[in-house]
Formats: sequence, C-alpha cells, structure tokens
Amino acid sequence: MSELRQNIITRDWVIMATERAKRPHQFVRSDKPKIELLKYKPDCPFCIGNEHLCTTESLRISGHDGNWRVRVVNNKFPALSPEGERIRWNDGIHKTVSGVGIHDVVIDHPLHNVTTALLPEEDIFNILLAYKHRFTQIRNDRRIEVIVIFKNSGEAAGSSLEHPHSQIAATPVVPYQFRSRIQEIIRYFDDNGDCIFCRTLLDEISTGSRIIEENDSFVSFIPYAALTPFHTWIFPRQHYSSYEYISEIELRDLASILKIVLSKLYYGLGNPDYNYTIRSVPLADENTKYFHWYLSIVPRITKQAGFELGSGMFINSALPEESAEFLRDVEIPQVPIS
Amino acid sequence: MSELRQNIITRDWVIMATERAKRPHQFVRSDKPKIELLKYKPDCPFCIGNEHLCTTESLRISGHDGNWRVRVVNNKFPALSPEGERIRWNDGIHKTVSGVGIHDVVIDHPLHNVTTALLPEEDIFNILLAYKHRFTQIRNDRRIEVIVIFKNSGEAAGSSLEHPHSQIAATPVVPYQFRSRIQEIIRYFDDNGDCIFCRTLLDEISTGSRIIEENDSFVSFIPYAALTPFHTWIFPRQHYSSYEYISEIELRDLASILKIVLSKLYYGLGNPDYNYTIRSVPLADENTKYFHWYLSIVPRITKQAGFELGSGMFINSALPEESAEFLRDVEIPQVPIS
Repeated sequence: MSELRQNIITRDWVIMATERAKRPHQFVRSDKPKIELLKYKPDCPFCIGNEHLCTTESLRISGHDGNWRVRVVNNKFPALSPEGERIRWNDGIHKTVSGVGIHDVVIDHPLHNVTTALLPEEDIFNILLAYKHRFTQIRNDRRIEVIVIFKNSGEAAGSSLEHPHSQIAATPVVPYQFRSRIQEIIRYFDDNGDCIFCRTLLDEISTGSRIIEENDSFVSFIPYAALTPFHTWIFPRQHYSSYEYISEIELRDLASILKIVLSKLYYGLGNPDYNYTIRSVPLADENTKYFHWYLSIVPRITKQAGFELGSGMFINSALPEESAEFLRDVEIPQVPIS
Repeated sequence: MSELRQNIITRDWVIMATERAKRPHQFVRSDKPKIELLKYKPDCPFCIGNEHLCTTESLRISGHDGNWRVRVVNNKFPALSPEGERIRWNDGIHKTVSGVGIHDVVIDHPLHNVTTALLPEEDIFNILLAYKHRFTQIRNDRRIEVIVIFKNSGEAAGSSLEHPHSQIAATPVVPYQFRSRIQEIIRYFDDNGDCIFCRTLLDEISTGSRIIEENDSFVSFIPYAALTPFHTWIFPRQHYSSYEYISEIELRDLASILKIVLSKLYYGLGNPDYNYTIRSVPLADENTKYFHWYLSIVPRITKQAGFELGSGMFINSALPEESAEFLRDVEIPQVPIS
C-alpha cells in the first residue's frame, strides 16, 4: 500500500506511490543528446560581443581579465514592468494592481551552452553573488513586496533560450501561496516556539537517510514529503529570513553544494531539465524570526495531471530515502571545462 | 503595462501579460495530426470485448442494445488502495497516513479513440451520470474525506492511454489546498453573507464579456483572473455544495454545455490537450452554505516554469475577455460520428 506524507512546510499531502514506485535508475534520462560545448553563437543576445542586443544592464561582475563573468539585464519581454506606479483598482470582487515590478535576466556565464553543473565553483559563486547584489538593489523599491530568484534549465523547465541564464522577479503584491504558507509557519512558531525550517533541518540531520550533501553552511536533502521525484531542498544552517543576509563565506559554501547537487543530478539522472528557486520572506517581514530562506531544486521528470490539478495533492513515484541514497552514491568525474 | 488580477476564489494573483499577450488565434495548435477514428484495438484493455483485461468493475451503464456505454473499474496501478484501514502515524513533525482511498478509471465510451467533444450529448450524459452514481457509492466509505473527478485528455495533460477515460479519486485526508481555499471562502461568507461562487456567477453574467455559453442550469466562462490561457469554469446556477446533488435535468444540461465548450476548444484551438476536474466540498461539510461545486477545464497550452514555481503566481498570456469572445465565435460543425 502507498502512504501519504505531509510536507510540514508547504502543508501539502503527498501520495508516496510505493505500489507504482520506480527505482531511482528508472528516472535516468537516456534520450538527451550530448551537447557539443559552444563558446559563441553569432545571433545569441547573451554571448560576449552581442551585449548591444540586450536591454539595459543593471549589474555586471567582471573577472580578472576585465571581461564580464555575469551580467544582469532587463527582461526584453518582462512580465512586470520596471516603470510606473503601483496602483490598485478595487471594483467589487475585481481586485487589480498595475503590473509594475522587476523582471531581470541574469546571464549566468559567457559560454553559450554550458550547464551550471559543469561550471567551476568560482563561476557559480559569481552568479550567486550577482543575485545578492541585485536583491539588495531591488529591496529599496517601495513598490515591491516579494523577490524571487529562479532558473529554468531546459525546455521541460520552461526555458526558451539555450544560453544559461536565470531570472529575478520582484512582485508588487504578496502572492497568496506565500501568505498562506507564512500563516501556517507563524502558527507553528506560536505553538512550538521555533522555526519550522530549523526544526526540519535538525530532523533531517538526525535522520540522515534523506541527506544528499552537507558542508559548514548548508545541508541539501530530499524532504520527507518531497512533492515530486528528486525534489531537493538546500537549507542554510544559519537562520536568516532572507537571501539578502547571505555572507561571503556562505556564498562560497552555497556555490560548492549547489555544484555538487546539480552535478549529481546531471551525471546520475542524465542531465534532466530542472528549475531552482530561492525563496525569501516578503520584504515587509524581514525582521521576523519565523521564516528561513532556502533554495529548492525541482527536476522536471514527471508531469502534473488531473489528479494534482483536481485535488491539489501530489503523487510522487520516487521514495525520498531511495532517491537520496542514489544521489549520495553518484560519483562526480573531475572534468575541467576550458 | 501588464496588470495583476486576483482570482477571488483561488485567491491567486495572476499576471495578465498584456505586453507579451498573444491573440487567441496564436494559441491554435496546427501540428496535431488528424486522428483516424478507430472502433477497436486488440490490445486495448478498455475496448469492448477486452473487459477481462481490466480489474474489478464497480459500475456499468448500458445502452438499449444491451452493450455497455460507460464502465467504472479499479485503476490497475492505483495511487490509493481500496483495501485496508485508514491509519495515522504522527512521529514528531512526520505526519503519515496509510494510502487508502479510491482510484477509479471511468471508461468514457466503447469507441477506442474518440474525443469527448465529438460524442453525442447522450453519451456525455452517461459519463456524467456514472460520475454521480459512483460518487454516491463512495461517499459512504468512512475512510474518505474528499472525492475529486477528473479527466486527462492527451499526453500534455498526463494521459498515457489513448482510449478515452476519466478518473475518480477519493482521498483519506482533506488536501491542504482544499482546506486553505475553504477557509477563505468561509471568511468571504462571514464578511458578506453570501457564497463567493454565487457572487462570481452573478458578476460574470452581468459583465457578459467572459461568458462562453449558457443554458438553463449552467454558465461557462473564462474567469476574470483565469490562471492559464483558456482556463474555463462551468458553474451550476443552483447553489449546491457537491456534485452528488446534481439532478437529471442538470446532468442533461451539463452534458450539453460541456459538449459545446469542449467542441469550441477542439475546433477553435486545434484539439488541445486538456484536463477537466469536478470539485465538491469535503464530505464532512456537505450541508454547508458556503461551497458551490463546479467544473474546471484547463487546456494544457503553456508550461509552468520557475516563475510560477518560485512565486506561486501565474502568468497568463491570453486575455480572458479576448479568449471568451474568440470561443463564442467558434462555430461547431454538425458532424455525427457513427
């Protein structure tokens, strides 16, 4: 018989479909062609030398050679517009807000089609540093309530451009999903006196079976009630409400663990498409004790269908303990890119 | 500039991406091959004559000729098992429930690869009637909290079998998404004294611009803050909390409007893959005044990416008013199937 597990942070119930569970190796993608590394593509707006094809640059991190390593530019087709006032129209049951906000593209790296897993740690550090700098710039915009950092890697994850990039979205409202989760997190805090993220972290460390990798500042694990196969969380050991507060040492440790986890997915599962997201508390609540920022990785291995749409529940056909063990055992070859 | 609209029932904020909005005809799928109608496939477990390939049948609706028109069978690979006790294990922050419940397959029709839009109304009536009968059977199972009816049509909607079928899932817990929405619906009821669904229905009827089709018992419309392109709701005019209470006249009217809406999607958008779901209140709350059952259709035209995963918000690139006008104008050819 299957079992239902409750994800204590999202509060979602997940059906762990043991009856139709697959072994970890059954998720390995074998159809993905090996990619020839391409340094430059003439019509790619994100390649070095084509900077004029992009919109305004808001941030740049340069290497010792003077060339940029990471650039942040405005999204050419933004979902939210950086110009204009935040205006509300409440007309009966119709609530509307003007679509102001930030929708940045972070160009992760100069190389045209490299994947994050294969980058040197130093380059991943630069991407994560750019996120922090840009977060700090955006947080002063009084129209903004929530800042979300995310990456779409591959077509199944919603990416339409090959050149590696991530995105930063800053919204003029607190999304309902944030608000409802926070209400539950506050309730846990009030009932138990501690942060549900810290509590989960301690629990995962003492259990051990769902851990993928740890270092001084971070722990990566597949949660007890992972919503989808190989759904992975990276939690900072230090309790801070927002990514804004990440230190340089932590940035280096995050670069290290992110590279390891993405590499294990890359080599272990045959380069699956994935999303990652970094969630922080709404800006208005940054001084709170009850929220803990974290990074979530969602490999796009399975599809959500009517069951999920109709019930709001998830079916996970991979057991977290087995998946974590599988990833722990994946060896990462030492292949320097040049 | 885009605008954000709040879906007053789900409470989700949706970015109506007017800047990158597409006209309705840009969503038309032109790559889908025309399907040769096939009455029977020898290895299909859902075809007439192959009943022995299925698990236990729990319900059957027969035609005047004595042949079955709709069959309900146990899912061969159930996410929830019909046998066993509902048991809870609460171990610290780990909440677990045994995976008992119902996971039915409804074989919609004897023909091997017909799509619902092309069926005669009478056949759709039979499918909807089977849902009701089966709902009434399952509701007496004391292990069950919520019954969800849904259909996956096409690969993008998560369907793995060609033969038209839908599913009924009955869960041993109230999914968190149900619970949190209900809390908000109760709050609206307490603040305003009426049902938010009834209020929305009245508003859509008086506005008119988002209506697709109406009849005596039902109204179909694209909600003000539709979560995805062509996301369509069909609301009963009569306020009942559960599908269980649908009358025979209403079943006929639902068959009629569902055929029209699915046909408009089929002819207007080039046979998109879609899910539909029927949501009722949790069984324990069937006598409540605040909930209103409804049917939701979600064409699987766009993908959710990191933006949605990270923020919990939706981006909709189709304006509800334009989409509804487009669907109103789609003419349905009179092609009887034989």
